[in-house]
Amino acid sequence: MDEKRLQQQIAFILEADKEKTILRQTHLSGKIRQENDAEHAWHMALMIFLLQEYSNEKIDLAKTMMMALIHDVVEIDAGDTYAYDETALATQALREQAAAKRIFGLLPPDQAQTLHALFNEFEANETPEARFAHAMDNFQPLLLNDCNDGLDWKKHAVTKTKVYKRQEKTKLGAEKIWQYTQKLIEKNVEKGNIKDE
Amino acid sequence: MDEKRLQQQIAFILEADKEKTILRQTHLSGKIRQENDAEHAWHMALMIFLLQEYSNEKIDLAKTMMMALIHDVVEIDAGDTYAYDETALATQALREQAAAKRIFGLLPPDQAQTLHALFNEFEANETPEARFAHAMDNFQPLLLNDCNDGLDWKKHAVTKTKVYKRQEKTKLGAEKIWQYTQKLIEKNVEKGNIKDE
Repeated sequence: MDEKRLQQQIAFILEADKEKTILRQTHLSGKIRQENDAEHAWHMALMIFLLQEYSNEKIDLAKTMMMALIHDVVEIDAGDTYAYDETALATQALREQAAAKRIFGLLPPDQAQTLHALFNEFEANETPEARFAHAMDNFQPLLLNDCNDGLDWKKHAVTKTKVYKRQEKTKLGAEKIWQYTQKLIEKNVEKGNIKDE
Repeated sequence: MDEKRLQQQIAFILEADKEKTILRQTHLSGKIRQENDAEHAWHMALMIFLLQEYSNEKIDLAKTMMMALIHDVVEIDAGDTYAYDETALATQALREQAAAKRIFGLLPPDQAQTLHALFNEFEANETPEARFAHAMDNFQPLLLNDCNDGLDWKKHAVTKTKVYKRQEKTKLGAEKIWQYTQKLIEKNVEKGNIKDE
């Protein structure tokens, strides 16, 4: 067997392990602690399988799941950019492309190319798979935040306008999830969890 | 839309969130802390995609990834059973079947059935998908333990015989990964990380 190839694959697998230490702003249900990137990606992939019937368009399931599993791997170098931090958002794309080049570059060339392309496809959000993955990327923290009585929205004093802007991609991927999302947002505005400016 | 159906799906998704708090014996690379079930499942699914070329048989990729993502969900009720704890292993199957019934039962009936069947298929280890998922279930902690200089083997004074017994399913799913596994085991026996009785 080609052991060099397997060793390159293992180098990437062990590098990816670091995602387990990158914290997001979202808290686990029960407000226990902040969630990390690996946990978020696991949850997203699970949701892609379970909620595929709500995708606006037919999707390649394995491809969409893998897109979710690796969409945050760049944060090993670039860190987590909070969805409502505008300064960090301005430099996010450049930081993440450099990270993608280094981290996917650990893989054998064919797989490096496949994964880098999958990451770029997610970012561009122009295919059915990317659109549904984005819908789940938004819906997952919304569900956690809702079941935690808006903990993270309150902590960052997030406004209704910003939540709607963040969630607008959900409509492109999953119209029915978008309808449910709007109900959850309005419920949290009424409760004062999201600021109604 | 059928909102009851979506609410059942969300109930399962939020219940599954608890996997993020179930600790395994394996430590993350860098010995930072113990790994949890969600992180382990994320890593396994990623490996299934990246290492599919080593599967002994052709596999349905999305099915195998989903099998990995949910294979430990029963531990929300049944707890993690350490691979070398023989007392706990004796009652594991019964505890896990009761858990599977309750947890998958949160889903709409068709999905409850699909996921329970997928869990049973993993446990039975009689299909190409289950065999490859098992190979990755074994190979993932082995890689972490190896890169941590055998931390978890040393802590539990695990013997060579037990490691080989634990890893024997790897051969059924991925002969080439099995060849590499043997090298890693022998290296760790030589280093004294695994006890050579």
